[in-house]
Amino acid sequence: PELSQRMFRLVKATRDVGNAYETAGQRRVTVALQLADWGEQTADTAISDLADKVGVILTEIGELDKKYAIAADIARTHLKLIRDTERSVHPSREGMQRVTDELQKIMAKDPQSDRVVMLEQEFQRARAKNLVAEAQLTNVTRQNFKEAYRKEFDAVIERAEKQIIMARHGHRLLRLLDYEAVPPGSVPEPYTGDTQARQILNDAKDDLKDWTPESRSV
Amino acid sequence: PELSQRMFRLVKATRDVGNAYETAGQRRVTVALQLADWGEQTADTAISDLADKVGVILTEIGELDKKYAIAADIARTHLKLIRDTERSVHPSREGMQRVTDELQKIMAKDPQSDRVVMLEQEFQRARAKNLVAEAQLTNVTRQNFKEAYRKEFDAVIERAEKQIIMARHGHRLLRLLDYEAVPPGSVPEPYTGDTQARQILNDAKDDLKDWTPESRSV
Repeated sequence: PELSQRMFRLVKATRDVGNAYETAGQRRVTVALQLADWGEQTADTAISDLADKVGVILTEIGELDKKYAIAADIARTHLKLIRDTERSVHPSREGMQRVTDELQKIMAKDPQSDRVVMLEQEFQRARAKNLVAEAQLTNVTRQNFKEAYRKEFDAVIERAEKQIIMARHGHRLLRLLDYEAVPPGSVPEPYTGDTQARQILNDAKDDLKDWTPESRSV
Repeated sequence: PELSQRMFRLVKATRDVGNAYETAGQRRVTVALQLADWGEQTADTAISDLADKVGVILTEIGELDKKYAIAADIARTHLKLIRDTERSVHPSREGMQRVTDELQKIMAKDPQSDRVVMLEQEFQRARAKNLVAEAQLTNVTRQNFKEAYRKEFDAVIERAEKQIIMARHGHRLLRLLDYEAVPPGSVPEPYTGDTQARQILNDAKDDLKDWTPESRSV
């Protein structure tokens, strides 16, 4: 039936969104490893240390995208419930329509027939069944529509707030890099940022651990 | 040379990350359209209106991912500058090595040769050239490493802050949906949220327009 078809497509497309974030997150983790690799073989100790630690920040940002993909998939289970209910309502609508059609046919041909009483009883049963089905559809649809997108928006906010935490600590790391141009034959000031850089990563880890969702903290 | 090879791989992998976000954003826009389509054909006016407007929020969240992919690509241009400088330093290192090798060979065979003076002069020129190249490499690498990831982190923060704005207004939309279960044969309370829902989308648009990056507002 057309109704459940559209939700079927929506559920499928929602899975594609989750897969794309999973891929994006994984690729970012790969980039982070390659960045650390590159930094390791440069002769510049500041770059080696900071490329490694910026890599840690990027890895965490990538992992947050992967976690978001999982959260998006939980939202999808609610859409599936809507889809399945839409599908199950269809036979009860058809059943009621079939009895109605038959009743009208008999009434036109032979209104005194015993079949009329039987069909009227059958119609009442089909109608009761369909009323329940339609109420279920309304209730399931509203509850799960709300729940699906509530979880989706919660997941967007969680990922965003945590990625902001990581990116801000990333900025702190970059401020440790002296980038005044050195003249030929000179070397840059010796790099002394490694202790501070390690502390920044610890701060980032702590901030991430301390994060609570708004709804829980309010 | 090995040095520029690693940065070459990193630049390529960074492009893959951007592409994955572009895909994710586009898929989310598709989902938003399908959600509105599905809502349109349900008999429930509340769902029709809210599915359409939640779709507008999701579309904007998707567009933000696509914009983020473009920003990530600007960061990549800085990595390319590092890669190209790494590549260009290689010949000057090799040139100096070649003269050094030749000089040692002559010194071992015939230290009084006229070639020695010539090669010593050549070594000084090659050394001067290489010192400039190495200083360029240090400067270009530090400046562009810093700039690449500064822009990357800025882009992460901008996308995250704007997606939080959209998701919060999304939550407001969902609160307009009454989802108390109705008994069979009843219909839900008539939906009266459409004016408010339209206002929420206007608020979201305004908030997005008013957004300024921290670095600019501080």
